[in-house]
Amino acid sequence: MTVQRGFPTSEYEARVGKAQRLMAEAGLAALLLTTEPEVRYFTGFLTRFWESPTRPWFLILPAAGRPVAVIPSIGAHLMGQSWITDIRTWRSPDYGDDGLSLLTDAFKELVPPSGKIGVPSALESHLRMPLSDYARLQDALGPERLVADKLIMRRLRSVKTDAEISKICHACTIADRSFARVRDIARTGVTLDEVFRRFQMLCLEEGADWVGYLAGGAGPGGYGDVITPAVSRELASGDVLMLDTGVVWDGYFCDFDRNYAVGSVPRDVDDAYARLIEATDAAFEIARPGATAADLFHAMDRIVSGGEGGSDAGRLGHGLGMQLTEWPSLIPQDDTVLEPGMVLTLEPGIEIAPGQTLVHEENIVVSGTGAEYLSAPAPRDLPRLM
Amino acid sequence: MTVQRGFPTSEYEARVGKAQRLMAEAGLAALLLTTEPEVRYFTGFLTRFWESPTRPWFLILPAAGRPVAVIPSIGAHLMGQSWITDIRTWRSPDYGDDGLSLLTDAFKELVPPSGKIGVPSALESHLRMPLSDYARLQDALGPERLVADKLIMRRLRSVKTDAEISKICHACTIADRSFARVRDIARTGVTLDEVFRRFQMLCLEEGADWVGYLAGGAGPGGYGDVITPAVSRELASGDVLMLDTGVVWDGYFCDFDRNYAVGSVPRDVDDAYARLIEATDAAFEIARPGATAADLFHAMDRIVSGGEGGSDAGRLGHGLGMQLTEWPSLIPQDDTVLEPGMVLTLEPGIEIAPGQTLVHEENIVVSGTGAEYLSAPAPRDLPRLM
Repeated sequence: MTVQRGFPTSEYEARVGKAQRLMAEAGLAALLLTTEPEVRYFTGFLTRFWESPTRPWFLILPAAGRPVAVIPSIGAHLMGQSWITDIRTWRSPDYGDDGLSLLTDAFKELVPPSGKIGVPSALESHLRMPLSDYARLQDALGPERLVADKLIMRRLRSVKTDAEISKICHACTIADRSFARVRDIARTGVTLDEVFRRFQMLCLEEGADWVGYLAGGAGPGGYGDVITPAVSRELASGDVLMLDTGVVWDGYFCDFDRNYAVGSVPRDVDDAYARLIEATDAAFEIARPGATAADLFHAMDRIVSGGEGGSDAGRLGHGLGMQLTEWPSLIPQDDTVLEPGMVLTLEPGIEIAPGQTLVHEENIVVSGTGAEYLSAPAPRDLPRLM
Repeated sequence: MTVQRGFPTSEYEARVGKAQRLMAEAGLAALLLTTEPEVRYFTGFLTRFWESPTRPWFLILPAAGRPVAVIPSIGAHLMGQSWITDIRTWRSPDYGDDGLSLLTDAFKELVPPSGKIGVPSALESHLRMPLSDYARLQDALGPERLVADKLIMRRLRSVKTDAEISKICHACTIADRSFARVRDIARTGVTLDEVFRRFQMLCLEEGADWVGYLAGGAGPGGYGDVITPAVSRELASGDVLMLDTGVVWDGYFCDFDRNYAVGSVPRDVDDAYARLIEATDAAFEIARPGATAADLFHAMDRIVSGGEGGSDAGRLGHGLGMQLTEWPSLIPQDDTVLEPGMVLTLEPGIEIAPGQTLVHEENIVVSGTGAEYLSAPAPRDLPRLM
C-alpha cells in the first residue's frame, strides 16, 4: 500500500462538512476544541510541541465555513502551512490575557448571540485550558452558551477514512518489522530497560517518526503489570517478555503487543497463550458491520475468563487512530455498532496466577463485510528467545 | 554525579509536608489532582500509560496524612509498589460511573463537610477528567467546595530538590552526548526526517528512557519554525540545522537545542549565533537568588532585539523538570524571584529575516550564589557540518 504524508484539502473539507451537519442536527452554532487530536483533526496541525503544557490552543468550528484558529503566535508559521486561512494569534504566555479576549471576540463575530457552543465533555475527553480561564469564558459569553458537543467528535473520529487507515497500517508495519527483530536485542541476561531502549531504536530504524508509547513486562511465567516502564532486572529463563508499543507515523498510532518466552516456560504458559490467540480469533471472526463492541468483548471473555465479565484491565480492546486509545471500548456496556472504517484493537488478557498475567493485542479494521488485520497476526505458538 | 532511579520515601514525605503547610495557610482541606505530573509528584507513579486518554486518575491530598489514590484498577499493581497505601480502584472505563462515586465517597470520608478542595486552575494547568464528570462532582460535593489551588502546585514544583536536579542533569548529559554525535548522522543530502529519526536513536543509545520531545528546523540561513516535525527535505549547503530535544530519564526532562551550519553560511548567520551566545551569557551571569524571571528576559532581550520586548515565541526561556516546560516564563510580566533549586532554560531567539530565525537554548539550575549549567554550554562559534 502506498502511503503519503498529510491529507488533501478535500479530506478536511469532508470532515468539516460532516461535523457541520451533525452540529446543525444538534442545534450547535459552533464547536470549541482545545486538545491536540481535536485541533489536528480539522487542521492537520501536527507538532510534538503539545508536550509543552504552557500555552492553550483554540480551534473554533463555526456552523459554516472553515475552522478558525485562535493560537499562540509561536504556532502561526506552522498553522499557516495548513488549509486554515483565518489564523488569529497572540503572544503567549500572557499573564493578563492568555488568548481569552481574542477567543471571546472570535465567538462574538462567528456565532449568533444566543448560539450554543459545543465542547467535548463526555468520557475520554478533557478540556486543555486552565479552569479559571474557562470560567471567565463562560462569564464573557453568557450563561448556558457552552454545552456538551453531543459526542460529535467521537462520532466523527470513530470512523476512519481510507487515507487515515493507510497511515495506521503503515505504523503497524513499522512495528511488525520491529517485533520481527526482537531476537536481536532480547535474551537471557539483558536487562528489561535495555530491551526497551533497543526496541525503540528498532522502531525508529524501521521508520517510526517517534515512539509514542512503549510499555511491557517480564516475569517468571507472566507479568504483573502491562503499564510499567522498564526496570533494570535481567531477563531470565522461564520469563515471559511482553512489549506493547504505540509507534507514530504522520500522527497516527498503532497499538499492539507481542509476547516471547525466554528459554523454557511451564506448559500452562503455552496453554494460556493459545487461549489468547483463540480469543482474538473469535472476536476477529465476528467483527463486521452490525456487530457491537460488546459482542467482541463477550466473544473474547468467554474464552479467557469463562464469561466472568472482564478483568482489572477494564476492557478487552478499544479504538485506535490519532491517539493510542480511542472509542469504543470492548466492554459489556458498549453497544457501539461497528461500521466500515472503524479501527480496533483486540486485547484479551488472562491471569495464570496472581501477578502472572498474559495480554495479547492485535489491530484490525472493520471492512464492508468483515474485518482485516492491520498488524501481521502473531505466531500461533508463543515464540522463544534464548 | 551518581544518580539513582526513584526517590526515597522521605522525599515524598517532604513534598506532602510542604503541600499540607501551604494548604493550611490557604484554608484548603484537600487537593484534587488529575494530571500525570501532579499525581507523580506525590506518589512516584511513573508510566507512559497516560498516553491513553481513556481513563481518569485521581489523587486526593488530605490536610494530613498520605495521599489517597482513586484510580482505575489497571494501575493498582504499579501504584501498589509506591509509598501510597490507600489505593481505591474501579474497573475503568465504566460508562455508568467512571470512578465518580468512589471519588465522592473518598472526599466525604477525608474532608469535613464544608472543607474547600483545591484544584489547579491557573495558567499552565488543566483538568484531566471529563467536564461532564467535573460538573457532577461539583453537584455531589455541594456548591463552592471546589476552588483554585492558590498556585500551591506551582510553588512546590518550581523549586527542585537535589535528587530531582540530578535526574534533570542526567537527562542533559544524555542529550549532550547525543548532540556530540550529530556529525555522524547529519550532512548535505540527508533528509531532515532521517536526521530526526537517527537523532532519537542516538539519544536512546546514550541512555534515554524515551525521547519525549524532538523538534527543529533547517533552512537557508535559518529556519522559519521551531516546533515543526520533520519533513523529507534534504539538508543543503547554506542551511542552518537546529535540533531541540526533550530527553526523558526517570521521568525528568532536559530541554535544549543545538545549531549547526551545513557547509558554508553567510556571515550574518555567524553574527546572529554570536549574539545568541552573548545573550545566554548575559542571562546566566545575573541568574542568582533574588533576580527575577523578568530580569533574565531583559538581559537577553536587550541583546537579541535591542530591548523591543520579545518575539512571536512569546518568551525567552522557562522552567523545566517533570515536564518539558514549567513555570516560570522568562517574560517581562513574570516577577518570580529566583530561588536555589529552580531549573530554567535560557532560550533567546533572533530573526535574521522573515522566516529565517535562529534559537539557542541552555539549561541551568539556580544555586545558592549564582547558577550552574546543566547542559554543557554550546560552542562559542556555530559548528559546521559537511
